Amino acid sequence: MTKFDEATQAIKVDEATYDVCLDAGYTIGTALNGGYLMAVMLRAVVDASPHDHPVATSAQFLRVPKVGPATVRLEQLKSGRTTTVTRATLVQDGTPFVDAFVTTANLRPYVPGETPPPDELTWSAPAPPMPPIEQCRALPAPRPESNMALSARMELLFDPPTIGWYTGEPTGRPEARAYFRLAEPQDPDPFVLALAVDALPPVVFSAGARGWAPTVELTWYLRALPAPGWLTLIGSGSLIAEGWFDENVEVRDSAGRLVAQSHQIARLGRG
Amino acid sequence: MTKFDEATQAIKVDEATYDVCLDAGYTIGTALNGGYLMAVMLRAVVDASPHDHPVATSAQFLRVPKVGPATVRLEQLKSGRTTTVTRATLVQDGTPFVDAFVTTANLRPYVPGETPPPDELTWSAPAPPMPPIEQCRALPAPRPESNMALSARMELLFDPPTIGWYTGEPTGRPEARAYFRLAEPQDPDPFVLALAVDALPPVVFSAGARGWAPTVELTWYLRALPAPGWLTLIGSGSLIAEGWFDENVEVRDSAGRLVAQSHQIARLGRG
Repeated sequence: MTKFDEATQAIKVDEATYDVCLDAGYTIGTALNGGYLMAVMLRAVVDASPHDHPVATSAQFLRVPKVGPATVRLEQLKSGRTTTVTRATLVQDGTPFVDAFVTTANLRPYVPGETPPPDELTWSAPAPPMPPIEQCRALPAPRPESNMALSARMELLFDPPTIGWYTGEPTGRPEARAYFRLAEPQDPDPFVLALAVDALPPVVFSAGARGWAPTVELTWYLRALPAPGWLTLIGSGSLIAEGWFDENVEVRDSAGRLVAQSHQIARLGRG
Repeated sequence: MTKFDEATQAIKVDEATYDVCLDAGYTIGTALNGGYLMAVMLRAVVDASPHDHPVATSAQFLRVPKVGPATVRLEQLKSGRTTTVTRATLVQDGTPFVDAFVTTANLRPYVPGETPPPDELTWSAPAPPMPPIEQCRALPAPRPESNMALSARMELLFDPPTIGWYTGEPTGRPEARAYFRLAEPQDPDPFVLALAVDALPPVVFSAGARGWAPTVELTWYLRALPAPGWLTLIGSGSLIAEGWFDENVEVRDSAGRLVAQSHQIARLGRG
């Protein structure tokens, strides 16, 4: 079992209750990564659902949970032939920290070279431009005292201009683009994708913002089961106004397929 | 009071319960428009919240409610200085039909020509291209027996290629673009925006799809209080696959400001 699989385990107590243990390996400063928290909650949701894949997840980040034991409470809102809809709440000491709606359904396994049935309507936007991985770079390893444990758990190789902010040369637009994989050998699955959609530095860093940018709401859609290998994360935003910004992340797999899309609204950091 | 304001009224029963009456004027065939249902729910949420504006709404469309009396049940999940988060459930005969998380906060009133404080970080993507309103066209009025009552409640003037599907000439891409206003004299507000983000025909019609395309999940962000006048709706999608499609709508006000963004995932119709 990989570190990630172990850190996202959800142990069934009863049909509506799962025990989890929030892992210090996924912290950013004093907080736990939102994508990691979603992955933990989705383990419980998928285990309890008659459907296998979390196609739509809308998460409300109410409070910042602590490392350690927590509970995922489930409430099934609907279960039909095509989808199941579940409310999942991450609870610590009786208080809700993250509240989510999750729609599960069944997607097809990834089969290299397989094309959809000829009578099926399909269309895909072209992949946004991205330099080859050899031209992309990591950010320097964070200082140990900054407690950015998460950065050791994943590899991010950035399209260089989108980390220009690090050396005082932001592009002036909300954007971030990187290749992504776990630091340990593990191919992407829906739980890794939950981590991936919230793995980039806030897109507003490229527009000149600094500091902790708390996510208020994040919705992501799983569009296909990913091929093995690196993921590509394309992050952008449309508006920074009144202290709020939006961040959109499109995730492509190593075969170039669009496998996940996320949209979040967050607050600008103060300082 | 306008028809829209009347049709979205929510009467307080107690702090967690509002009575509403779902109005036949907002039907599309046998269903009620999802944007209209969100507007009704948001009336209750905003009335009960210490904050004034629904900045983030994530709605799960579980079942198709009927015209007539219904109840909005509220559960406050968090209330802080900046935001309040509420769960709102639209209930008929004891069954949940739409379940939503809503974050309320306070946005600034629209003041013509006003610019943000100089120390505030702001950035906006440019408005997508749209032909002048004189070059845009309405769809023909639907046949009365189709029961598309909603189409009489709003004016939509389309960028012509994006309704080419109506005469058998779809563009081959998921897209829809139109100017929008209520048919009655009423300037846009957050409740009208809730209707607007789900007012376009499904973007997949332009890609060759037909038939009722049920929304599973829709999240929208209110980014600014709108200027009076026409709204511009820019709808697009990134992927049609495995019977699912995404639809993104960007709403600009008459001053060209980005006022709302929505993202939904829906099922392709069957025939």
